[in-house]
Amino acid sequence: MSVFDKIEKIQYKGPDNKDPMAFSFYNPEEEFMGKTMKEYLRFAVAFWHTFQGDGLDMFGKPTMRRSWDSIKDPIALAKLKVDAVFELCEKLSIDFFCFHDRDIAPEGETLRETNKNLDEIVRHISDHLRTSNVGILWGTANLFSSPRFMHGAATSCDADVFAYAAAQVKKAIEVTKELGGKNYVFWGGREGYETLLNTDMRLELENLARFFHMAADYAKEIGFSGQFLIEPKPMEPTKHQYDFDVANALAFLRKFGLEENFKFNVEANHATLAGHTFQHELRFARINDLLGSVDANQGDPLLGWDTDQFPTDLYSTTLGMYEIIKNGGLNPGGLNFDAKVRRGSYDERDLFIGHIAGMDTFALGLKAAAKLIDEGTLESLLKDRYSSYQSGVGKEITEGIADFRSLEEYIIDKKNPLPEPSNQEYLERLVNWAIISAEK
Amino acid sequence: MSVFDKIEKIQYKGPDNKDPMAFSFYNPEEEFMGKTMKEYLRFAVAFWHTFQGDGLDMFGKPTMRRSWDSIKDPIALAKLKVDAVFELCEKLSIDFFCFHDRDIAPEGETLRETNKNLDEIVRHISDHLRTSNVGILWGTANLFSSPRFMHGAATSCDADVFAYAAAQVKKAIEVTKELGGKNYVFWGGREGYETLLNTDMRLELENLARFFHMAADYAKEIGFSGQFLIEPKPMEPTKHQYDFDVANALAFLRKFGLEENFKFNVEANHATLAGHTFQHELRFARINDLLGSVDANQGDPLLGWDTDQFPTDLYSTTLGMYEIIKNGGLNPGGLNFDAKVRRGSYDERDLFIGHIAGMDTFALGLKAAAKLIDEGTLESLLKDRYSSYQSGVGKEITEGIADFRSLEEYIIDKKNPLPEPSNQEYLERLVNWAIISAEK
Amino acid sequence: MSVFDKIEKIQYKGPDNKDPMAFSFYNPEEEFMGKTMKEYLRFAVAFWHTFQGDGLDMFGKPTMRRSWDSIKDPIALAKLKVDAVFELCEKLSIDFFCFHDRDIAPEGETLRETNKNLDEIVRHISDHLRTSNVGILWGTANLFSSPRFMHGAATSCDADVFAYAAAQVKKAIEVTKELGGKNYVFWGGREGYETLLNTDMRLELENLARFFHMAADYAKEIGFSGQFLIEPKPMEPTKHQYDFDVANALAFLRKFGLEENFKFNVEANHATLAGHTFQHELRFARINDLLGSVDANQGDPLLGWDTDQFPTDLYSTTLGMYEIIKNGGLNPGGLNFDAKVRRGSYDERDLFIGHIAGMDTFALGLKAAAKLIDEGTLESLLKDRYSSYQSGVGKEITEGIADFRSLEEYIIDKKNPLPEPSNQEYLERLVNWAIISAEK
Amino acid sequence: MSVFDKIEKIQYKGPDNKDPMAFSFYNPEEEFMGKTMKEYLRFAVAFWHTFQGDGLDMFGKPTMRRSWDSIKDPIALAKLKVDAVFELCEKLSIDFFCFHDRDIAPEGETLRETNKNLDEIVRHISDHLRTSNVGILWGTANLFSSPRFMHGAATSCDADVFAYAAAQVKKAIEVTKELGGKNYVFWGGREGYETLLNTDMRLELENLARFFHMAADYAKEIGFSGQFLIEPKPMEPTKHQYDFDVANALAFLRKFGLEENFKFNVEANHATLAGHTFQHELRFARINDLLGSVDANQGDPLLGWDTDQFPTDLYSTTLGMYEIIKNGGLNPGGLNFDAKVRRGSYDERDLFIGHIAGMDTFALGLKAAAKLIDEGTLESLLKDRYSSYQSGVGKEITEGIADFRSLEEYIIDKKNPLPEPSNQEYLERLVNWAIISAEK
Repeated sequence: MSVFDKIEKIQYKGPDNKDPMAFSFYNPEEEFMGKTMKEYLRFAVAFWHTFQGDGLDMFGKPTMRRSWDSIKDPIALAKLKVDAVFELCEKLSIDFFCFHDRDIAPEGETLRETNKNLDEIVRHISDHLRTSNVGILWGTANLFSSPRFMHGAATSCDADVFAYAAAQVKKAIEVTKELGGKNYVFWGGREGYETLLNTDMRLELENLARFFHMAADYAKEIGFSGQFLIEPKPMEPTKHQYDFDVANALAFLRKFGLEENFKFNVEANHATLAGHTFQHELRFARINDLLGSVDANQGDPLLGWDTDQFPTDLYSTTLGMYEIIKNGGLNPGGLNFDAKVRRGSYDERDLFIGHIAGMDTFALGLKAAAKLIDEGTLESLLKDRYSSYQSGVGKEITEGIADFRSLEEYIIDKKNPLPEPSNQEYLERLVNWAIISAEK
Repeated sequence: MSVFDKIEKIQYKGPDNKDPMAFSFYNPEEEFMGKTMKEYLRFAVAFWHTFQGDGLDMFGKPTMRRSWDSIKDPIALAKLKVDAVFELCEKLSIDFFCFHDRDIAPEGETLRETNKNLDEIVRHISDHLRTSNVGILWGTANLFSSPRFMHGAATSCDADVFAYAAAQVKKAIEVTKELGGKNYVFWGGREGYETLLNTDMRLELENLARFFHMAADYAKEIGFSGQFLIEPKPMEPTKHQYDFDVANALAFLRKFGLEENFKFNVEANHATLAGHTFQHELRFARINDLLGSVDANQGDPLLGWDTDQFPTDLYSTTLGMYEIIKNGGLNPGGLNFDAKVRRGSYDERDLFIGHIAGMDTFALGLKAAAKLIDEGTLESLLKDRYSSYQSGVGKEITEGIADFRSLEEYIIDKKNPLPEPSNQEYLERLVNWAIISAEK
Repeated sequence: MSVFDKIEKIQYKGPDNKDPMAFSFYNPEEEFMGKTMKEYLRFAVAFWHTFQGDGLDMFGKPTMRRSWDSIKDPIALAKLKVDAVFELCEKLSIDFFCFHDRDIAPEGETLRETNKNLDEIVRHISDHLRTSNVGILWGTANLFSSPRFMHGAATSCDADVFAYAAAQVKKAIEVTKELGGKNYVFWGGREGYETLLNTDMRLELENLARFFHMAADYAKEIGFSGQFLIEPKPMEPTKHQYDFDVANALAFLRKFGLEENFKFNVEANHATLAGHTFQHELRFARINDLLGSVDANQGDPLLGWDTDQFPTDLYSTTLGMYEIIKNGGLNPGGLNFDAKVRRGSYDERDLFIGHIAGMDTFALGLKAAAKLIDEGTLESLLKDRYSSYQSGVGKEITEGIADFRSLEEYIIDKKNPLPEPSNQEYLERLVNWAIISAEK
Repeated sequence: MSVFDKIEKIQYKGPDNKDPMAFSFYNPEEEFMGKTMKEYLRFAVAFWHTFQGDGLDMFGKPTMRRSWDSIKDPIALAKLKVDAVFELCEKLSIDFFCFHDRDIAPEGETLRETNKNLDEIVRHISDHLRTSNVGILWGTANLFSSPRFMHGAATSCDADVFAYAAAQVKKAIEVTKELGGKNYVFWGGREGYETLLNTDMRLELENLARFFHMAADYAKEIGFSGQFLIEPKPMEPTKHQYDFDVANALAFLRKFGLEENFKFNVEANHATLAGHTFQHELRFARINDLLGSVDANQGDPLLGWDTDQFPTDLYSTTLGMYEIIKNGGLNPGGLNFDAKVRRGSYDERDLFIGHIAGMDTFALGLKAAAKLIDEGTLESLLKDRYSSYQSGVGKEITEGIADFRSLEEYIIDKKNPLPEPSNQEYLERLVNWAIISAEK
């Protein structure tokens, strides 16, 4: 039985297409750089936004109109949404979805009851997995919605809350393993503080480290081989989140000896809220060999909250894919659409229209990034720029032979060195050329 | 001979004082918590803003009127400014000043000539040091003003620029040592990028690490025992500075094995530009045992650039001093006024008025912070808040006995835990009480 | 019967008080500048935050614990909350409250049914009014929560929605009149756009003007003599709100001939979101003779959304009250606490603690502002600063005698004029002095 | 004699071009929508950035290398730069330039001497005008660089400064008239305040209005028929600028009866600093029939200051040109490149590379905007969206027949109206389609 029964499988219609319900650029089986586009762009649907998002905002009630709105039994509803995510993924040619434990199954009176509900839905997902090409990109635990997490989870001031979070993550890892999830994500939405006046930051960070060590130990114990990922965000809902950006989280991981166990899930909108470009966070994670996966969305640069829009900015996807290509792709990670349709896009068709917009924009970004690299000018300018480190005093520096004395001797009587111009204006024009030429 | 010959030594006149040229709260020799206020508040004058600042901004020409404006000979002028900084410090009861190499002496055609100029001024400072109580809080090298550093210094794309910076820092450390400087600061104003399109971030960060290792090796070699400090800033002049905030810099230090050699010089205005409160950056540095010194100023929260205003916000100084007291003070660091009088405050008297405003505000902040701690409510509320970690499952967590299995067993059948309320509104009121009561 | 039966009337205990449930500075019947403090600070409770706020945020479920949580019948619940607002106001010595139509009574299937519900609650409020000193500061209509308003109300793309909003405001004005409300507020939360790509801005603004004219006509027709107020906000929930700040709204009012009918309700947190200080918006409204009322709260300068915190910043209340004193007070407007307790302050006691914190901070701000004015230095410096306009060429300018020719003749051979220094550092210190001295 | 003697006239080489010194998209004589591209895109060079910009920033010294650096005589230098601007414009196929009085000629001891210098350069420009196709888009007076303007010009606290500014603008208008300038611009860089503590905002705004009236009167008197333009900016250098955005300036103009005399010169980077998109400011000016001219540049959305970058963002130019097309073009205004090459782009070639990048991006934006309009989907969706105002109750609203009573009667028993979905995701995709298709 079909949830989206009026919607056919979405077709690729080529670059002149203007049908909102067809792809113009994303052609899943097209061969591109030795792979299919589908293999390169490992898209995933975010269960929460797409199946739990109701259009509510801080000043308004839910707006979304869904065919499942009339179903009252929570387990029946949960199962129908599982059916729906598989149907939506298949119709969109998306191979993965991501979920929080609390998205997919209702909470009970105790954690034991909650886990029982979860098990029932997990079995239902497993049934689908046997007959579908769709799989799980990552699972995670919702440690922020319940009032019990109002002051954090692993960083709560209340030890019972820490215990609850630990037990919840234990189960979420088990479930992710059972469903063949490729990764497991930690987003510490309330791991931070509202005011320093009531916060023991040292204890909270130590507890967070203890929690992560327990998680790593438990994953090892049960043989979960998926990648652990941290998803940084600077603020919201919390005034300050400890995982402010990749570097903040990395300083923490390195302090507590956790850097072998984690990579990063970089979100575009979280990057800009932290004062960084999406590309910056990807680059910084990449050169630390820690770029694991991506939450593909975009924010509004003039708004100070997480708008989680579907990604339609070609600069963001082009420069993002540039980093991802340089990273050798993201596998076993992928591109999770942590994006919600606008509150005014309340029709079920809009769920498809939003994803198609994001997929098409990433497909174009992939092609533009490849063009930028293949064309060669950008790469050769970059190489030339640092060529002084390939020989002479530059080589001595990078090889560790130089020291302050030798460098002083080298430079002390030289007229002032002046580096070459920066080329910024031209390089930005090259990016435009790549975007315009992506489909040629 | 006197530069500020119309200005007498600034006197303490008590809390009712409204004379702009007298202290209302800063009473340098007053005993406070077992020390004099002067020992607690190790103020320093920033040579650059106070003696080189000319009121120029991006849209306007210099405005400052100085008695030394008519002196043309660069060496004579440099010496007069040295006389002036000692006179100003003494009249303000400030025990320290800080300088960049290029503030105090003019540049020559080559580094050798520049160093010669520097040596002459350093001798002149040394002469003063023999007869004055004023000393050097920290020295540093200006690696950002010259065109040669347009693309960075240790992270320049040009190896000759790296060499120049190395030789310059070598000399600056020598000079700081010679003058008895207590610390040496690295502010990487252009160690970052304008666009990622022309940037090899991996190489640049590795080069920065090489540079820091060379600096540490050289300091050890010549027996410089002062503290090395990194001063983070997120941006400006550069679009992105690698030392974005304390955590970003710390991730770097830990990666490259440099964390033993550096502490942090936290600047209030840099903190807010990075999206953090001043207190946050102090706290984060403190609990990592890396709070070394402070650049005491303030920004305008509605402006996106470094306004470097004299600190007059009592919340900032109260909560700042709270962290500093908890840190056991800053010695051998201090409170450097990295602040400039407003462009419209162009009179020499304004240099005094600005410092007095900052000193008075910090003196009040010190008293308010001490009151907040001594009164006890804040501290006891904080202790109570985390008391669940003192026994039972909380103690098992902090002692490393608990794991995911034991915590699941503990919590799985419990009704939902709910932590105590947060008290934020009351705690903010307590801070107001401390400020209002500081002088009672 | 009492809702807050464990809470006594809040007492004034003087400046040394640290009991969170007593006033330290707000002494309602204390004479001050010829009035009681209560008359000066016309506080009002915001019905929505205090009686409908449940602690929900975009990432979390409700947290608030209320004694009325168990009541299921919507009319009975609505009546109990009316009882509660009168009780809370009386116990806090607050003379007013403010409400949206939808806060106080539940919505029905049609507007007719909704109005019937509203009438029933209005009668219940009227009963209270007969025996209480508490009154209505202002009423308003909620034109943003319902899905029907997703694209705006008076600026909706759908004419039926415009009609609905018109009918709703008609009723809300009637009800406000019936309850003796002193003012009526328009906050255009969704009068703006999400994207210009689907927006006919010209038509939308013309419709908004038509709507305001209809409202003014109807108020006149029924003899509602309360003041109409516009409450600007730049964004959130909408990407752009047409009433971005006071000046944006004023440009609109002047274009459409509406400036005689409206004044402004200035909110502190909305001011900072628009890039202005609270004082700026107050000043700008005041000098245009349009400062009508205030939403007394505060935001976090480092967060990009409306945090609606209880006001605890003494600078904000001191400089705010400075403008309000200069405005001759706000009567018939007042200080509405458009503030919500933090999500972690979920106890009913926190409702009191939050209001007390805000009231005490405004009481201190009032005293500090009065001190600043009475002491005289600030005022005399300000007068001196512009004294050149009191005579000579300055007088010719302000009297309209001068023109470009006469001014050229006057200045063309003069050496460059240079204005006096700005005194900013000293003036900021004067504000600190006023705050510290407020209670002496 | 040639200044840029190694640089040939820039050629159009078509969309595959990657030569930084040739156009890929801007083909000046190409016919497009009944005009040449050159007529549509009335580009202008900003004299200040291109001929006076030296690469200085708040942390660094000048970097620019210019062939005229060795010329010491100020008048000879000024004349050479005039030669240079004509040469640059001609080689770039740019028809206009813009200037401040102080850009083009050096200041003297008195205004009389300054005017004499100016006259000499104006004659030199006039000589060029006789033989060149290049003309003046607009002139303006620099009322912000000199220390005399530290507290504003027309809003200075010092009446002599007001007089000086008046005399300076008198001369600048005369000169603009003499040179055939099409417009005259007022940018009030320091017409605002640093702190409200020393500011009489009412007097300052009244003086500003007096100043504008004098300017309008004088222009009328001498028969200057060019358009007066206000260029809003929210801040920088000043903490608050009175012309914060178009709406703020418009509220002022309407208050003082000045709205007939002024239109707006909208700058992209100023828009984003004010929290608006470039398109928003253009749209708002346009629907008020006040869009006069454009400062074509771009800022960095993550930086809080005016970076004045050459425009290379295709979204900004596409949506900007969409508004400009809807405005019927800008004539007699144009697109002034108020943009500076990056500090690291110090070579004279970079002046060309920067302009080419901006011109190409605007040429593409023009084509994409035209495509978006011609294709028709966007326009028809927009029309449909507001169709309910074409008949029935909607028509009654827009025709002024409806009132609150009639609308209540119409809606009171209707089930809730629900407007159509917003289409945002699809509309953003349409913009991408237009960009990608612009050159097809």
